[in-house]
Amino acid sequence: MKRITTTAGMRRWTDAARTSGLSVAFVPTMGYLHEGHLSLLRRARREADLVAVSIFVNPLQFGPKEDLKRYPNDLPRDTRLVRKEGCDVLFVPSPTDMYPPGYRTRVTVEGADEVLCGRFRPGHFSGVATVVLKLVNLVRPDVLLLGQKDAQQAVVIKRMLEDLNTGVKVLVCPTVREKDGLAMSSRNNYLSPDERGRAVAISQSLFLARDLARRGERRASAIRARIMKVLTEAGVIGVDYVEILDGTDLTPLLRLEGDVLIAVAARVGRTRLIDNVKLKV
Amino acid sequence: MKRITTTAGMRRWTDAARTSGLSVAFVPTMGYLHEGHLSLLRRARREADLVAVSIFVNPLQFGPKEDLKRYPNDLPRDTRLVRKEGCDVLFVPSPTDMYPPGYRTRVTVEGADEVLCGRFRPGHFSGVATVVLKLVNLVRPDVLLLGQKDAQQAVVIKRMLEDLNTGVKVLVCPTVREKDGLAMSSRNNYLSPDERGRAVAISQSLFLARDLARRGERRASAIRARIMKVLTEAGVIGVDYVEILDGTDLTPLLRLEGDVLIAVAARVGRTRLIDNVKLKV
Repeated sequence: MKRITTTAGMRRWTDAARTSGLSVAFVPTMGYLHEGHLSLLRRARREADLVAVSIFVNPLQFGPKEDLKRYPNDLPRDTRLVRKEGCDVLFVPSPTDMYPPGYRTRVTVEGADEVLCGRFRPGHFSGVATVVLKLVNLVRPDVLLLGQKDAQQAVVIKRMLEDLNTGVKVLVCPTVREKDGLAMSSRNNYLSPDERGRAVAISQSLFLARDLARRGERRASAIRARIMKVLTEAGVIGVDYVEILDGTDLTPLLRLEGDVLIAVAARVGRTRLIDNVKLKV
Repeated sequence: MKRITTTAGMRRWTDAARTSGLSVAFVPTMGYLHEGHLSLLRRARREADLVAVSIFVNPLQFGPKEDLKRYPNDLPRDTRLVRKEGCDVLFVPSPTDMYPPGYRTRVTVEGADEVLCGRFRPGHFSGVATVVLKLVNLVRPDVLLLGQKDAQQAVVIKRMLEDLNTGVKVLVCPTVREKDGLAMSSRNNYLSPDERGRAVAISQSLFLARDLARRGERRASAIRARIMKVLTEAGVIGVDYVEILDGTDLTPLLRLEGDVLIAVAARVGRTRLIDNVKLKV
């Protein structure tokens, strides 16, 4: 496996890959890899001839009061894991190489700041869209793999890559969970044992919501109330949102119909966690 | 020469071109081609194995009160001209193919709305940056050719393509002028004979400004005053701006130094014309 640390080096690799005619699958990450990331790498291995992974904690997608500075990292461990999964290239650029002095360009997907995490993290999805487009231009993949846990991110990136005629196919892969149901996240690392105990209420509330829907409940308000009850009883009180939306374009639903996304964001202690379930009604 | 009218068709051509290993030069236009465009096509011919041209009057870059609906067009004539110049592909997409229902993505270059035409055409350069990125993603050129007449457009596009790591080289080619000095523009077509007579004052004022600078004048205010005098005396009174800027990053200059751009935008009758000269001091 090749480890590349500059945008110029990445372009050279990509030019060579393109000339060879081999297909490329790409998994962008912020590092501190967990089973969720590794499941994407394994799927990527099956999708293309070459697998590229990036680790870049993108300053553009963090708000001024968010956890950019304390975001966990362990590059030696990540490198071992990526190599073990048989990836071909690990791209680890520096912030100044990605955003040199004079950098001024932003990609925005209109409406992204109006639902779900967008309302609580202004500019976040513009930061995500911008960095993913930059990485896609450097790696030139045929297919990009993303996790369903970050549901809104997946919708925004898919929309952006399609709108801009990049020709990149997006594969959204299932959320990987701990044994008790908690969605894997690098941010779970922040949780104290007590907080970890309470955090499981988030996935439990979503599984309950899915069961209610499967048993015929169609009122979004009723499902939202049940989720809030589970969270409150578990002591998860910092709830940013419980939203029930169309899974394709993220418009809010009053009644469950078609592709439905039920999504929660809540703070457990100082740690903000998100999770969601998708279902067809 | 192949004429392609769909984004899907364009992608197929591009995939084939990439597989062949041939290089591609690309000239994006809004059609109604004049000598300025043709000079770009000839230069493109020398720059790469294949030459692609697009004609697309991009609704995203026109304001609600601007001339989108009356923008001149003559596709049969343009097609003949492009063929005569030995181009390989002419891409003429439809607005609904470029911006289908649900389209939501915008590319912006921060600061572009704060100088020159940006102040008078809010959102214009975001519309330009967005469509050029889409076209570049569809055509995948090695080199993109632009005219110096649209100086701010060239700076914005160059910045955007570099910031987003597209790897596309930008070549900015000299403004082509009528015999009396008027910069060629599809919008010259709007001018009445009387307006055409007055319009030449724009280029004349810029040539005078360049002469003054060459003879040692360094005060931007003095040069601006002389330009205004020439315009006023010729009856060109709808002056949007006379600006003297750094030619690389478009910051305003009080004293002429380094790469200098002197730019004018003025309305002659209902027609808004722009022109500029570049010089090294």
